[in-house]
Amino acid sequence: MGIEKFSIIESTLREGEQFVNAFFSTEEKIRIARLLDEFGVEYLELTSPCASPQSRKDCEAIAGMGLRAKTLTHIRCNLEDARIAVDTGVDGVDVVIGTSSYLREFSHGKSIDAIIELAQGVFEFLQTQNVEMRFSTEDSLRSNPEDLYRVYEAVDKLGIHRVGIADTVGVGNPRQIYDLVSTLRSRVHADIEFHGHNDTGCAIANAFAALEAGATHIDTSVLGIGERNGITPLGGLVARLYAYDPQLVSKYRLPLLMELDQTIAELVEVDIPFNNYVTGFSAFTHKAGIHAKAVLNNPETYEILKPEDFGLTRYIHIAHRLTGWNAVRSRADQLNLKLSDDQVKLITEQIKYLSDESVLSLDVVDSLLRNAANYRQFRNTRRKLQVESVGA
Amino acid sequence: MGIEKFSIIESTLREGEQFVNAFFSTEEKIRIARLLDEFGVEYLELTSPCASPQSRKDCEAIAGMGLRAKTLTHIRCNLEDARIAVDTGVDGVDVVIGTSSYLREFSHGKSIDAIIELAQGVFEFLQTQNVEMRFSTEDSLRSNPEDLYRVYEAVDKLGIHRVGIADTVGVGNPRQIYDLVSTLRSRVHADIEFHGHNDTGCAIANAFAALEAGATHIDTSVLGIGERNGITPLGGLVARLYAYDPQLVSKYRLPLLMELDQTIAELVEVDIPFNNYVTGFSAFTHKAGIHAKAVLNNPETYEILKPEDFGLTRYIHIAHRLTGWNAVRSRADQLNLKLSDDQVKLITEQIKYLSDESVLSLDVVDSLLRNAANYRQFRNTRRKLQVESVGA
Repeated sequence: MGIEKFSIIESTLREGEQFVNAFFSTEEKIRIARLLDEFGVEYLELTSPCASPQSRKDCEAIAGMGLRAKTLTHIRCNLEDARIAVDTGVDGVDVVIGTSSYLREFSHGKSIDAIIELAQGVFEFLQTQNVEMRFSTEDSLRSNPEDLYRVYEAVDKLGIHRVGIADTVGVGNPRQIYDLVSTLRSRVHADIEFHGHNDTGCAIANAFAALEAGATHIDTSVLGIGERNGITPLGGLVARLYAYDPQLVSKYRLPLLMELDQTIAELVEVDIPFNNYVTGFSAFTHKAGIHAKAVLNNPETYEILKPEDFGLTRYIHIAHRLTGWNAVRSRADQLNLKLSDDQVKLITEQIKYLSDESVLSLDVVDSLLRNAANYRQFRNTRRKLQVESVGA
Repeated sequence: MGIEKFSIIESTLREGEQFVNAFFSTEEKIRIARLLDEFGVEYLELTSPCASPQSRKDCEAIAGMGLRAKTLTHIRCNLEDARIAVDTGVDGVDVVIGTSSYLREFSHGKSIDAIIELAQGVFEFLQTQNVEMRFSTEDSLRSNPEDLYRVYEAVDKLGIHRVGIADTVGVGNPRQIYDLVSTLRSRVHADIEFHGHNDTGCAIANAFAALEAGATHIDTSVLGIGERNGITPLGGLVARLYAYDPQLVSKYRLPLLMELDQTIAELVEVDIPFNNYVTGFSAFTHKAGIHAKAVLNNPETYEILKPEDFGLTRYIHIAHRLTGWNAVRSRADQLNLKLSDDQVKLITEQIKYLSDESVLSLDVVDSLLRNAANYRQFRNTRRKLQVESVGA
């Protein structure tokens, strides 16, 4: 199935707050909300107003900002939480409860029948409140599939807007997610949301598989921050969808990704990972000679993401022992230096020799190129003078 | 198909050297090789001896170390490179050539027929040299599938040991990889290797999908370092396979992952990403009250990787506004403090109130708990004294 319509539920202000280093003041939350809204995410998910007095005030404040994005808050499956959530003025309420035997035994202690009964009570109330209603299981991947479908079908009959699948421990793989979402797609009318943790490196691929199978909403956070090593990162999901079809993410202001990643990294006191999608410092670097040569001819040879679409630039590294003479030739051309192929090949050998000894800077490479060009110019000038003098 | 037998081709000393910050001295390469060998990877892939004079000497040095891991070197598809590669004494030669129209047009300019002819020449030579022989296409995911199969079938007839699929630009998604490997599995006799870049966040999931479809060899590098933002990281692949079945990776010395990641991070002057698989500082942290409570009851509730299997420990963060009274109760128990449920609930509210104001340390939480316990002890002692005094 092709991916067409989807929305991002941006959860930096809920899941992200569960990152061990996260402590957002009200002002910081408002700044994050505004930036995400400018980027263009469709939803902002906020920490439960039941978490603490300030969490409640912050929820009310962000719900009242008049953002283009809809606001959601994330609550336990009980009536009291639902009443408090609605009172904050959010556009929608995300209800969650654990369904795996792990969570039923060691967290809330409830049977599947009890879960369905609880959910019915909560949604009968929410139906009267003019809010978007979502029901998600928790630890869905380790839940008995028949339990899952029974719960989803029960809440689907109540006319809720979305059902959510949560890979809470990051155990799912793309084929499992695809199968689970496909089956769910055939069994409920509601939209389908996917929330995936990244403990085993599949959070982006799983979100993509969910969309391929018919999911409509994906949870993200900036840099993926969340419990443990986090969830599907906003930038990573955008990169994945861009690679599939740039039109899918043309609704977002992609050049804001860098500011988003930098802002959150600063607020939670981490560095943007060196290898981060799009915004890591190495994302658009090219090094081996064979890569550099081809990228200089046509960047698409070794780039699936165009840095300029994200307001960024590429860097081609040529001052090292893996360099090639075509890449060095291109640097000479950039510097407007006239050199023969033989000269460029000789300099390339010199670069390899020198960089076998120690780290080499681009300055040194440029000097080698300039010296050679000057020598060539000097020699040509001398020849020309000799010819003129002979002719005279 | 279940995943059974597989080998890791560890390419920190080839792909990793193509990371923009990487410059490994001979001593450093030897140190990395030894550590990877101790970890237990089956193969080490080394930079082509044709890259520079020192690269050639280093290749010879590592091939001569007498490691348990087999050594491979990675060369262009031509006879001269193949001769030099064999002379270094490596156990196997990894031959690569671009097959996508991008690379054929903008890199080497050769037709598919010319590629097959070149490969035949190279492998006819290598067949006489008692080395493992691998042929890989490059940018396989953007190559015409029929071109790919034609090339693979041609080299398969020459009795090579492995064919390689390379997602050189990181564009592939797990369902594509699964389909490609499945079809290839039915068309060649050779083993199948997968090499995947991580530009769009699927390098781990794609490697896993390749194994599910019948691939036998996966390329990795430590921390995933390589061109641009790199390839499948060793630790991430191991985490993914562990989640599928811990027995699959019991052949590796998992507690060495931290030393490997730290060593490479230091050598290439980056920090281990905060959210790195297994070794990132947040990998085994738990924060939200509902998570902390359950993890304290049974860590498997919110952990698919056991930190102790990697020589690591978990951290449960309770001094924040998302905390819950069960988690606070558990801290009191750890400190051997006797407190009633009502007392613990009151202190939990105090923690939420205080941490709404500013970042709270565990010391403050412990003080609140100790004060309450002291007061309770004082009160009980007083009561006991009163009872005794009444009784007397």
